Amino acid sequence: MLLDGVHFDLSQCEAQQAGYKTLAVNLSDLAAMAAEPTYALVSMALPHERAAQLAKDVTEGILELASQFNVALIGGDTNTWNGPLAINVVVGGAVQDQAWTRKGAQPGDWILATGEFGGSILGHHLGFTPRLHAARSLVANYQISSATDVSDGLALDLSHICTASGCGAVLLSNQIPVSPAAQLLANASNRTPLDHALADGEDFELIFTAAEAEAQRVLTDQPCGEAPVTHIGVITECPDLWLDHGTRRELLPPRGYEHGGPS
Amino acid sequence: MLLDGVHFDLSQCEAQQAGYKTLAVNLSDLAAMAAEPTYALVSMALPHERAAQLAKDVTEGILELASQFNVALIGGDTNTWNGPLAINVVVGGAVQDQAWTRKGAQPGDWILATGEFGGSILGHHLGFTPRLHAARSLVANYQISSATDVSDGLALDLSHICTASGCGAVLLSNQIPVSPAAQLLANASNRTPLDHALADGEDFELIFTAAEAEAQRVLTDQPCGEAPVTHIGVITECPDLWLDHGTRRELLPPRGYEHGGPS
Repeated sequence: MLLDGVHFDLSQCEAQQAGYKTLAVNLSDLAAMAAEPTYALVSMALPHERAAQLAKDVTEGILELASQFNVALIGGDTNTWNGPLAINVVVGGAVQDQAWTRKGAQPGDWILATGEFGGSILGHHLGFTPRLHAARSLVANYQISSATDVSDGLALDLSHICTASGCGAVLLSNQIPVSPAAQLLANASNRTPLDHALADGEDFELIFTAAEAEAQRVLTDQPCGEAPVTHIGVITECPDLWLDHGTRRELLPPRGYEHGGPS
Repeated sequence: MLLDGVHFDLSQCEAQQAGYKTLAVNLSDLAAMAAEPTYALVSMALPHERAAQLAKDVTEGILELASQFNVALIGGDTNTWNGPLAINVVVGGAVQDQAWTRKGAQPGDWILATGEFGGSILGHHLGFTPRLHAARSLVANYQISSATDVSDGLALDLSHICTASGCGAVLLSNQIPVSPAAQLLANASNRTPLDHALADGEDFELIFTAAEAEAQRVLTDQPCGEAPVTHIGVITECPDLWLDHGTRRELLPPRGYEHGGPS
């Protein structure tokens, strides 16, 4: 459920983008499980004053992405109210054999990632391509031990893999692919581009693990098309998360977006 | 997707009731198809100031009903925002052979209904029992030609059956089961209890059709437990909706709740 003022801001973006993003984040969840999407259900709460135009625009954004991935819009609900725009999308899909989960990473496994990280707020989060094609290539040809998509932040989402798998990880600071947007943000913030890459979130890239030989095969093959795969770290037995700078290591607090749920 | 100020009013009801209702209206849709529910996905947009308590209360109301019908809560999403409470529920279920639909009513079929109609706004709409048990008994033992649940209003939902089936209907005014709440409302409004029964909506009773002999068998057997089944009308070839008062007939405009979607 994506909300105006939280996940998008209609004073800063188009309603089409809000619709696109709401489906995209759901498809990213399916990609993280190596599932193929089949259908979507879309509900909207529309502010009275712009209801008709918003419904049209949101739907347009959803259909743009749905058609790219053969997702059938099979139902939903629209209502108007005295509140901001809220869009709920539920997607259904199927896995070939078994779904990837966060559980299954083994000490010694390499940690791989698609794409680049950081600065998503500058625009990427509204228009990213969910990594369904990457997941499809990976699941068909490689033994992946665990996977997730990065919605909350690279470090935080990696910590979820570690917790689920009962292990820890070392991230290699000079191998993290830092996006140009992270560089741009760092110019204005008091933080480094790397820090943005580790903690910004909403990158919607895949991070996944595989035994070393398998991981090297992935890195050589580069099977994910437009999404380059990078080796960003290693799974460890010790359950902590470390950032390795080559000459020194620092303990990495698993920061990122903490879901604004009730505390 | 049920919204504060539209489908419930948190200044007039408990959050538990809002949660209960959001699942109940979905289960009513399954009952209308003779489907058995299996799972539910629940998303909430929670106003910042009361987020934790609201999430707890809404979930309590949902679980109360879910446990009655063995519905597994398998996922969802919670977020806080500067907006009113919005609750989205998606349910999944299964049919034995074929789902009931609105299409299939034949001229001469009798129109049957469970329960009573009108005045739901006085409380019924927040605490009704979806007619899943009734649907289960009916689908197992009788040939039902079409069915729907009454959410928008008896006359309007019946007109949906007629449109889908390419036919019309005559409702028998003195056989419509009018609820005590409809009587109560009529005392304050300038409308008759029957008018409330025909147009109020949110009764969440089933209306369905069957060939005359089959319908008479249902009426004799009364297989729907706590929900008495009544004979309320007849399907006709002529595609209009009539209200028969015994000595005279009047054309019945299919009134009821028009979804507040964009116009």
